[in-house]
Amino acid sequence: MEFASDNTSGAAPGVLAAVVAASEGYAPSYGTDQIMHRVTARIRDLFETPEAAVFLVATGTAANSLALACLTPPWGGVFCHEHAHVHEDECGAPEFFTGGAKLIPVAGAHGRMSPAALAAAIDSPVHGSVHGVQPGAVSITNATEAGTVYTPAMVAELAGVAKARGLPVHMDGARFANALASCGASPAEMTWKSGIDALSLGGSKNGCLGVEAVVLFDPAKAWEFELRRKRAGHLFSKHRFLAAQMEAYLHDGLWMSLAQTANARAARLAEGLRTCPGATVLHPVEANIVFAALPRGAHRRAMAAGARYYLVPGDPDPDGPPGDPVGCRLVCSWSTTEEDVARLLDVIRG
Amino acid sequence: MEFASDNTSGAAPGVLAAVVAASEGYAPSYGTDQIMHRVTARIRDLFETPEAAVFLVATGTAANSLALACLTPPWGGVFCHEHAHVHEDECGAPEFFTGGAKLIPVAGAHGRMSPAALAAAIDSPVHGSVHGVQPGAVSITNATEAGTVYTPAMVAELAGVAKARGLPVHMDGARFANALASCGASPAEMTWKSGIDALSLGGSKNGCLGVEAVVLFDPAKAWEFELRRKRAGHLFSKHRFLAAQMEAYLHDGLWMSLAQTANARAARLAEGLRTCPGATVLHPVEANIVFAALPRGAHRRAMAAGARYYLVPGDPDPDGPPGDPVGCRLVCSWSTTEEDVARLLDVIRG
Amino acid sequence: MEFASDNTSGAAPGVLAAVVAASEGYAPSYGTDQIMHRVTARIRDLFETPEAAVFLVATGTAANSLALACLTPPWGGVFCHEHAHVHEDECGAPEFFTGGAKLIPVAGAHGRMSPAALAAAIDSPVHGSVHGVQPGAVSITNATEAGTVYTPAMVAELAGVAKARGLPVHMDGARFANALASCGASPAEMTWKSGIDALSLGGSKNGCLGVEAVVLFDPAKAWEFELRRKRAGHLFSKHRFLAAQMEAYLHDGLWMSLAQTANARAARLAEGLRTCPGATVLHPVEANIVFAALPRGAHRRAMAAGARYYLVPGDPDPDGPPGDPVGCRLVCSWSTTEEDVARLLDVIRG
Amino acid sequence: MEFASDNTSGAAPGVLAAVVAASEGYAPSYGTDQIMHRVTARIRDLFETPEAAVFLVATGTAANSLALACLTPPWGGVFCHEHAHVHEDECGAPEFFTGGAKLIPVAGAHGRMSPAALAAAIDSPVHGSVHGVQPGAVSITNATEAGTVYTPAMVAELAGVAKARGLPVHMDGARFANALASCGASPAEMTWKSGIDALSLGGSKNGCLGVEAVVLFDPAKAWEFELRRKRAGHLFSKHRFLAAQMEAYLHDGLWMSLAQTANARAARLAEGLRTCPGATVLHPVEANIVFAALPRGAHRRAMAAGARYYLVPGDPDPDGPPGDPVGCRLVCSWSTTEEDVARLLDVIRG
Repeated sequence: MEFASDNTSGAAPGVLAAVVAASEGYAPSYGTDQIMHRVTARIRDLFETPEAAVFLVATGTAANSLALACLTPPWGGVFCHEHAHVHEDECGAPEFFTGGAKLIPVAGAHGRMSPAALAAAIDSPVHGSVHGVQPGAVSITNATEAGTVYTPAMVAELAGVAKARGLPVHMDGARFANALASCGASPAEMTWKSGIDALSLGGSKNGCLGVEAVVLFDPAKAWEFELRRKRAGHLFSKHRFLAAQMEAYLHDGLWMSLAQTANARAARLAEGLRTCPGATVLHPVEANIVFAALPRGAHRRAMAAGARYYLVPGDPDPDGPPGDPVGCRLVCSWSTTEEDVARLLDVIRG
Repeated sequence: MEFASDNTSGAAPGVLAAVVAASEGYAPSYGTDQIMHRVTARIRDLFETPEAAVFLVATGTAANSLALACLTPPWGGVFCHEHAHVHEDECGAPEFFTGGAKLIPVAGAHGRMSPAALAAAIDSPVHGSVHGVQPGAVSITNATEAGTVYTPAMVAELAGVAKARGLPVHMDGARFANALASCGASPAEMTWKSGIDALSLGGSKNGCLGVEAVVLFDPAKAWEFELRRKRAGHLFSKHRFLAAQMEAYLHDGLWMSLAQTANARAARLAEGLRTCPGATVLHPVEANIVFAALPRGAHRRAMAAGARYYLVPGDPDPDGPPGDPVGCRLVCSWSTTEEDVARLLDVIRG
Repeated sequence: MEFASDNTSGAAPGVLAAVVAASEGYAPSYGTDQIMHRVTARIRDLFETPEAAVFLVATGTAANSLALACLTPPWGGVFCHEHAHVHEDECGAPEFFTGGAKLIPVAGAHGRMSPAALAAAIDSPVHGSVHGVQPGAVSITNATEAGTVYTPAMVAELAGVAKARGLPVHMDGARFANALASCGASPAEMTWKSGIDALSLGGSKNGCLGVEAVVLFDPAKAWEFELRRKRAGHLFSKHRFLAAQMEAYLHDGLWMSLAQTANARAARLAEGLRTCPGATVLHPVEANIVFAALPRGAHRRAMAAGARYYLVPGDPDPDGPPGDPVGCRLVCSWSTTEEDVARLLDVIRG
Repeated sequence: MEFASDNTSGAAPGVLAAVVAASEGYAPSYGTDQIMHRVTARIRDLFETPEAAVFLVATGTAANSLALACLTPPWGGVFCHEHAHVHEDECGAPEFFTGGAKLIPVAGAHGRMSPAALAAAIDSPVHGSVHGVQPGAVSITNATEAGTVYTPAMVAELAGVAKARGLPVHMDGARFANALASCGASPAEMTWKSGIDALSLGGSKNGCLGVEAVVLFDPAKAWEFELRRKRAGHLFSKHRFLAAQMEAYLHDGLWMSLAQTANARAARLAEGLRTCPGATVLHPVEANIVFAALPRGAHRRAMAAGARYYLVPGDPDPDGPPGDPVGCRLVCSWSTTEEDVARLLDVIRG
């Protein structure tokens, strides 16, 4: 009963097989391999952008930080949700890669930035003179840290706020496939057609070993990206092992089917929790994460049964009085089974 | 006939099998997996250092830069050979990770720093006051970029120069196994017993997909390293895939046997070249790289036959007059066969 | 009727005379001048700290950023009031000097951090693991941006919160003399006796041309500070011109008498405003700044009469309907006269 | 007998008087003062560039580093003479301000880069791929650290090498007036007419208290410069005190007459030394610095008589055997008198 994270799962068989196959023979290094040529073509095709620049790195933090460093100067402010991964979970990586930009948290319910709050944050008078940082970029996490999804219309609204103020927009798509699967949008609709300039397209959490693509819809910054990637130690010598993962991931709809599975498990879990006495689902469940308040007894039973999940940070002491509910974060992945979900629900029901 | 680099080869079967096996089931993420616990124990055992801190990253540039950033402040000078990888081939990564340290090239024949030149560089009067950068660290590449090896005695002599001046010493061991295999030293003799404080222990060039260990012999900087690694996007979520590579690599002497093969191929190639009319071997061949001046006709035959290797940077135009020799860099890897070597020699002999 | 800032005033006659006198003859450069030796002795004496390290720079931003860079690593969080100068008015200088630290705003009424809010911010679970930035330092602005003052007891309470969590504490004393004059505390009581580790002691706003001292009560970081200062271009070659200002400023109580004048003018202005129909004083007036909501008509009369002051950022349109009050920030300096204050009050009264 | 540096002298009377006068009354802060408007107009007029952007800072290190940071990205190489101030005497400031660029030393006799050596350095194959830093900018020091001067023709030749490779060119003119005075060129001829894009125009060493102008001949980077200056703590609040110095310095030819005096003193000193038995002048004396090898006895007499000057770094032990000459660096300033020079020569002659 593993619900701790989607990064505790292994690699999908198709991805793993591609890595093994890629090891055969010699291949040019540093991203000049044939597999990478095919990956670039595939992503351009999927996103309907014949000119986009495509790069691979191994971690989401690298993808996000390198992309943001290409979009904002060191004196820029990066506007993101107050619980965005780039703000809270990357140990200041965007600050490091950008040379000291400032992440500016924006409020919004259920992990989604409010367009009005974003506009107000950008328009703050502290950004108007040489004494303040200058508005630099907007970063949208989709699916969000709260397990919700921005539809293309929502993305377009936020990007519109940004574009009206001259700012480029980045999408942290560590769970991009889950977002697409959730709302049925096409990759193009979710990104450049809605105003996204740079995308971190995650693979690691959704069945890969460790690979993320960065897609720059305007290729003008491609060379800068390449230099920043090398300089940050993120250019793989045996790059084919990244490319092979991404090729398999995007082949024949694998990425979408893995995400659909994870999303379906989360939906089923939420549905079940809603019928558990005393349990409350805290955010709309639109991707592969369920936030729920569980009765303390249910939580204890789950722990005793070996379930693995994290508590909501800052939640009251899980060993506290029985009356208090416990905030829990339950993540499904491509490898979560229907049985896992059913068993957890059984344990929670007691 | 692939002699372009040791990073154009694939992964050794044992390493690849370990990656596949590691994918099974769930595992804690971010370096807390069981395989990593075993890797740490294994490296401590191999290096006879029960306290050393051990971390994994995926690239040599990351390993070197993160290690150096823990050893030198932003205002430090990092002394290294004038052709060191950290100085010439990492696009300024050490400068980026350290916050602007200065790499200070030191001369020396055959890719090895001269102890006298190192001492003179550190003792330069520009390092003596607040106006200059301060001596920060020494970085020794072993095996060197020229295909030579520092013996433990040579390492100890350089480290002695550094230690007498209060400087910590880093070893860039992207080809550490090749160096050990070359001179028969133990890991401990080659490192901390000779004064090394931090080691980048390479796996990628010698049969792994992409993994390097950083070994801090004094664990006092371990937490700093962890934070720098995370902040640089080099902490893998599915870290088990790094750990599995390193475990297999160090298992049952695999790393040494792969390096011995590569070294033996290079030795054989050099031996053969010495008997080719007009060919000259330019540096002692002590590891897996051969630098040779080939007669122009021989070079053209090799190219025509499909051999792949790089020319020495800055060498005279390879399409120049027939009389001029062409400087060539020929790299053998764990997967280079005796037949590859024999065939190349046949082509060169004409 | 100049109330725009305390940095629109000139230099006090005593300070200016010292600069002129210092120009005579030759003097060693880069901070080794005799005047600086006396300044160090004077500050150690004033602060009752025979060991403190003392440095001069020309701007408050330099003083704050250099001090903070010595206190926090690049992966540190710097906790400060949400309207602190270091957070809002230095264009990301602390981020630049520290190599990318994160400024973490803390709420609190009237420009003063609430100790409970500070504790909660430091204890946030996002600071607890390798994924978040680590608590780095606390920065207290005294006098505050709101024109209020922390008493030594208040400083000690905040510093206690910091110290209980292992954090060093910086005081941004751009208006340090105003704070001391306000509450009658001694320099030592306001700083190291209350838990301050590093102080930016401002001179520029209070009668100097451009000089700030940084006082490190623990001199262990002195050499690091010197290197950071040089490397940031803040070590003056003709350093005597900084030292002469600071010597005159601290001579014979000049700094305190200048601050007392500025504070007295602000107190008088606030007292007068409280009797103006429709005017409201928005924060306690404890130093040299008055925040007031003025009736729109009064504001227009003041502008028409040539008064200079800034509106509160984000305030409603000053050209809006007559009913709305206008938030104004009125700053007095050492050179503000009783007549200036009386005249402004007359104009406001209409 | 002060020959230690041109920064041990005080301020010229005209400059000092302007500072005193500027203190009168109130003035807008942060560079919006009227004096600064006049300075900008004056510099544009002097340089025959109606569009140039002009900024003031207080130190040469700040001027150089801020200018270079606007010209080169973090992954750039900055080509400069191997003894350039930016390389040897600024504690890594250019590395800090640029975010980790690499200073690449270029050889050349008498402190002047050789155009051929510059071309070879830029064209090095390590700059040709993603693995190396990219050529970023060229920095020319004029007058040089060796006391020689580049004529406009020499500048144009170096700048031509840079421009042919797409690189911008910076001039470190800490002693710009001395260079102009030496060769009689106009400011425009020495700079943009010869290919200079950004100039650090020094005042501090030549009669000011502490002020340097940065002139960007292409104003496209003006806003970036302003933000970098603020973010680095180099925007003065009471900016009028910088502007007043520069206005007086450039008024009525003061800067040129101060430089002419310093140059004349150095010329006289060199002329005298050439007639001293055993003394050798080491570099052409074209500005205000004389490098000379003095007989050991002469050097000891000078020290005993209270002369102040530095020895050439790395020179043999000044307390060594009488036969060895001692390398000395003798700097004249605007305040060096004919008597100072005569007296030093007398002492040296014995």
